[in-house]
Order: sequence, then C-alpha cells, then structure tokens
Amino acid sequence: MTTIDRTRHAFSIDEAVALLTRTPATLDALLRGLPDTWVAANEGDKTWSPFDVLGHLIHGERTDWIPRARIILEDGEARAFDKFDRFAQFAVSKDRALPALLDEFASLRRQNLEQLSELTLTEDDLDRRGTHPELGVVTLRQLLSTWVAHDLDHIVQISRVLARQYPDEVGPWRAYLRIISGQQG
Amino acid sequence: MTTIDRTRHAFSIDEAVALLTRTPATLDALLRGLPDTWVAANEGDKTWSPFDVLGHLIHGERTDWIPRARIILEDGEARAFDKFDRFAQFAVSKDRALPALLDEFASLRRQNLEQLSELTLTEDDLDRRGTHPELGVVTLRQLLSTWVAHDLDHIVQISRVLARQYPDEVGPWRAYLRIISGQQG
Repeated sequence: MTTIDRTRHAFSIDEAVALLTRTPATLDALLRGLPDTWVAANEGDKTWSPFDVLGHLIHGERTDWIPRARIILEDGEARAFDKFDRFAQFAVSKDRALPALLDEFASLRRQNLEQLSELTLTEDDLDRRGTHPELGVVTLRQLLSTWVAHDLDHIVQISRVLARQYPDEVGPWRAYLRIISGQQG
Repeated sequence: MTTIDRTRHAFSIDEAVALLTRTPATLDALLRGLPDTWVAANEGDKTWSPFDVLGHLIHGERTDWIPRARIILEDGEARAFDKFDRFAQFAVSKDRALPALLDEFASLRRQNLEQLSELTLTEDDLDRRGTHPELGVVTLRQLLSTWVAHDLDHIVQISRVLARQYPDEVGPWRAYLRIISGQQG
C-alpha cells in the first residue's frame, strides 16, 4: 500500500502557474464592490487593509518576481537583487480606487505569466542561483515557489482582516472561530 | 478631528449579505481546475483539505445558518439548536468531484440568501435569542455575524493549506512567509 503525503508538493512550473493564475480572480471575487469601509479595514495601528495589500501585490508584479528571475538568469549570484520596498504600496495606491487596483494587478499578473512562459525554463534553469540582499544565496525554484506562497499568504491576510471586523459581534461563537480568538486558524 | 476605528464593524444585514454573496465565487476562482493533488492537500493527520472544507460549507448551508435562524424566530430560547455535525462533509462529498461541490455550494448559498431576504429582519429581530446546545444563549445577530466570519475563516484555512505545500521549496524565504513559518500570518 502506498501512503501519499498530502502535506507537500515538489515545485512544478505548471502547478505554480495554475495557482498564480487564480489569484487576481480570487481577490476580485472577494473584494470588488465591497463597501469602502471593509476595503479599508485593518487590524489596528500600521497593519494593512485589503486595499494596502493590493498595492503591495502590484508593486511585487512590477519589481519583484519576474525582474528577480531575470537577474538570476542574466547575472547569477554576481548581482544581488534590488531591495524590495515593503511600503511602496502607499505610493502605488495613492488617490486610486480598489477596482483600478484589481484591474492593474490582473493585467500585470497576466503579462508576467506570459513572460515566465516565454523563458521556457528547464529543470537546470530552476537550480540557477542568485543573491538575495538579506537572505543570501537562493535558487530560481525557490523564488518561484515563494511567489506562489506569497500570494496565498496575502489571501490569508485579507480574509483574516475582514473576519476580525466582528470580534464582538459573533458573541459566544468567538470560542469556535480560531480566526478571531487569535489561535492559528 | 474624527479618528475612525478600522478594526471593527457593527453588524449590518446589507454588509453581511455583501460578504456572504462573495464566498462561492471566491472559492470557485481559487479552486476550480486546480490539479487534484492540490485540492486533496492537507496539513497532515486528520486535518482538512480544500475538498473537505467545501463539503463542510455545504453541510452548513443545509443544516446550520438558516435552519438555526428559523428556530430562533419560531421557538426562541425554548428549543435548542440541533447539534452541528463537524464530520458530515465526509458523507456529503463521498464519490463526488470538486466542481460539483462548488456548484452545489453556490446554489445553496444563493437560495439561503434569498430566504434571508424574505425574512425581512428588523433590528428587534436581530436581538431575538436562541439556545446553542453548547454555548448557551445567543442572538440572531450573533448567528449571522458568525456565518460571515466562518466563511472567511475557511478561506483562510484553504489558502493556508495550499501555501504550506511548499514548506521547503521556498528555501530561505521561509523566514519571511509567516504562513509557512507558523507565525500568525
């Protein structure tokens, strides 16, 4: 009898693209048309709202994933990646509305997946190495895996921010809702 | 100067419906067409896969939210809710495929939101009380708030399960990905 480990997947370009393709439509379905106060909701202090996260994802499409893949392919470890600005979304999003951000994210993601496809990466390419300015040596495979996990991390974040708007409204059910009670949910 | 608290919303039927309406399309965008091994992915042991969560959400549409709202409106505290079977999804989903579950969830949710609308609930109705078999006295407002938060909790769960399929593939980026490193992310 074969036991299948359902808790991990080896990286595959096709599967990564399947996941990366779905993120814009997922966020569109979740957020477009929601009342403005929900789009601007956060978890207090300087935490991010769904609106802020969209700007962050857009900045990533522009400056992070594909640009870094190209640095690995063209310069290898010799040239460290440019640092990623984790606060750029406040400039990206200034004076804009959520629907425009959703449209831009979808458009940039589509273009970036086209560029990824045009690179026709081989298994050997995926093992090629680059230099992260803080983390040191990383591979192209790790970069692309992180692109996927990073998308999902931010879907988690947006859903969590929305759910936590009802910390008291749910009453005694709070005990069952890990997302609100603060346990890993 | 008015400071707006962005971390909490008072319950409103219209806003709750806006959120509840979006869940089926969100899960459809995220999951339909994903490779089967990702739909069946879990976090080990008896944890749930995206497929299992869909069955759980379907069972909730059938037996939890609107049926319990009706018990509150018809019987008040006199009749405790039926217990919710947290393992019913394994029967709901047996021998079925994900697309059929996505379709059924969308259809049941649409019907339930129509029924909710037909109840034309007033603010006084929202304060009406019922008896939860374990939690004791709860209000209709708390039940409906929990319906919303419960949806979002399971979007969090599904996204987390998917992201965690790459615990090693992401390499050194693991340190930055709270969803994988295990910190609340």
